[in-house]
Amino acid sequence: MKQIMSVAFVALLAACQTAPVQTPVTEAHVVAAAASTEPSGGQQWLFGSAESSVVMRQTWATIADYVEAKAAEAPTYGVVLAPDNSPVQPGFLACEGKPLAAVFDADETLIWNLGSMAAFGRMGIGFDPAIWDDWEKTGAGKAVAIPGALDALTRIREAGVTVIVNTNRAAENATGTEATLKAAGIGEFSHGSTLFLRGDAPDGSGKDGRRMMISENYCVIALVGDQLGDIADPFNEKTLGVLDRKVLTEAPAISGLWGNGWFVLPNPVYGPSIRGDFDDIYPEATHWAPSAASELPAAN
Amino acid sequence: MKQIMSVAFVALLAACQTAPVQTPVTEAHVVAAAASTEPSGGQQWLFGSAESSVVMRQTWATIADYVEAKAAEAPTYGVVLAPDNSPVQPGFLACEGKPLAAVFDADETLIWNLGSMAAFGRMGIGFDPAIWDDWEKTGAGKAVAIPGALDALTRIREAGVTVIVNTNRAAENATGTEATLKAAGIGEFSHGSTLFLRGDAPDGSGKDGRRMMISENYCVIALVGDQLGDIADPFNEKTLGVLDRKVLTEAPAISGLWGNGWFVLPNPVYGPSIRGDFDDIYPEATHWAPSAASELPAAN
Repeated sequence: MKQIMSVAFVALLAACQTAPVQTPVTEAHVVAAAASTEPSGGQQWLFGSAESSVVMRQTWATIADYVEAKAAEAPTYGVVLAPDNSPVQPGFLACEGKPLAAVFDADETLIWNLGSMAAFGRMGIGFDPAIWDDWEKTGAGKAVAIPGALDALTRIREAGVTVIVNTNRAAENATGTEATLKAAGIGEFSHGSTLFLRGDAPDGSGKDGRRMMISENYCVIALVGDQLGDIADPFNEKTLGVLDRKVLTEAPAISGLWGNGWFVLPNPVYGPSIRGDFDDIYPEATHWAPSAASELPAAN
Repeated sequence: MKQIMSVAFVALLAACQTAPVQTPVTEAHVVAAAASTEPSGGQQWLFGSAESSVVMRQTWATIADYVEAKAAEAPTYGVVLAPDNSPVQPGFLACEGKPLAAVFDADETLIWNLGSMAAFGRMGIGFDPAIWDDWEKTGAGKAVAIPGALDALTRIREAGVTVIVNTNRAAENATGTEATLKAAGIGEFSHGSTLFLRGDAPDGSGKDGRRMMISENYCVIALVGDQLGDIADPFNEKTLGVLDRKVLTEAPAISGLWGNGWFVLPNPVYGPSIRGDFDDIYPEATHWAPSAASELPAAN
């Protein structure tokens, strides 16, 4: 009976996948993947490979090094972009003697959502919002801390810096997300003081509103995520093309912040980073065709 | 006429793809991808996203920071594993007053192979050895330096450290690879002194033999690549499963070297890092199924 139910469920979900697939710029929205008997290359690399594990540990050690050094400096300004500022002409919120904090995205930044990723994969679907909602509520114990995160968070807390989470998980699922973070060893978080969720501010899946709320009480010296929306919302401006978005990260006024207050961890599996056709990804100037083609025997 | 030739060529290549797909542990061997009208998610992230560009710049800055600091220390030992040593019980080659070097893989470490990646993608194939051989010979100008690499290499050279390339491109294509590195701005390299290729030592696509050749003249203080074979061959031991390989990187005697002499850059597109089925990638302890299944209306 259980098996029959499962099959019906999978069929229903497959039908759901025919819904419009405009990818929303939301952390939790996974790109659609074709049904497969094995994980995608991106999932194999991210969740399975020794290489990814090493990259994560390297990056987390860099984050902890930075936070320790910065905390010792008693900085005057944090790294949160001031309201109505842009990466091209940035201003930053002043510390004003507030206690220091580091702000982290949750999904694929602090934790790997192995339980839901495997469930989606085995069902042959990329993402389903109802299942994701269920995951936010019930996933505790089935997500794991990203390699290197726990050691780094210990160092960051020992440096006197408060760890705050700003995630696009839903405010109504706060209890589940608190339980998930705790079970993964990330720590105890409390909605509204150290945990900020989608719905806490009026800007939806934008995170700037919540960054302003956090900045009322803290000087934020580090922003860490797997998507640029974890740093500042203007990077996710919908009018920006694939190349524009990359160019914006190179704006002279902020280019020195990457690895120096603003940190990104790799996530080749989902998010606004996963887009573009061949022309977007491969510039005209690098077009190449095999010269060997001319050496092939002509077709009969 | 040109179009007809192209179609015949694509068909021929597609037929080639029915050959055995045992993925060799070789840098240049790209995992097979299904024919597609858009790049894979891994390619979109790696080559197209602002997030990847930022991750690369962060990591390259970390590498340059490390090399500058290490060079100033006049170290006694390098980071090349001594012959017949393992990551579990490692010994390292002594510097013995030799000049300092940093050793880099080429493909998807110093350069992104945009020309060949786009060509394979547009043909709907993952990899073809004859086309790749052509690319090694003729790709100069169509590969680009990875974001952050050029600034880091300048800092590394200014610290008095020689930049050496150890790649699995073929020795017989040395001229093409030298031209490709030069055209991407990586620098002038000379086969046998600052450029080491597959065929230079008897161990095939293993790189330990070439690391020993380099160590005859240099104290290697940094090893950098996108695959663990760029660090030490025992990580690519064929008997190691997906999880074993990850565990080996956590061996206490070497775990502190990641980000501290041994560096890995993300490449979710190809290589020995891209493998594993659902059971390999998602541990039993994280298995989860949506509770919502039980709330679905029963099938009629």
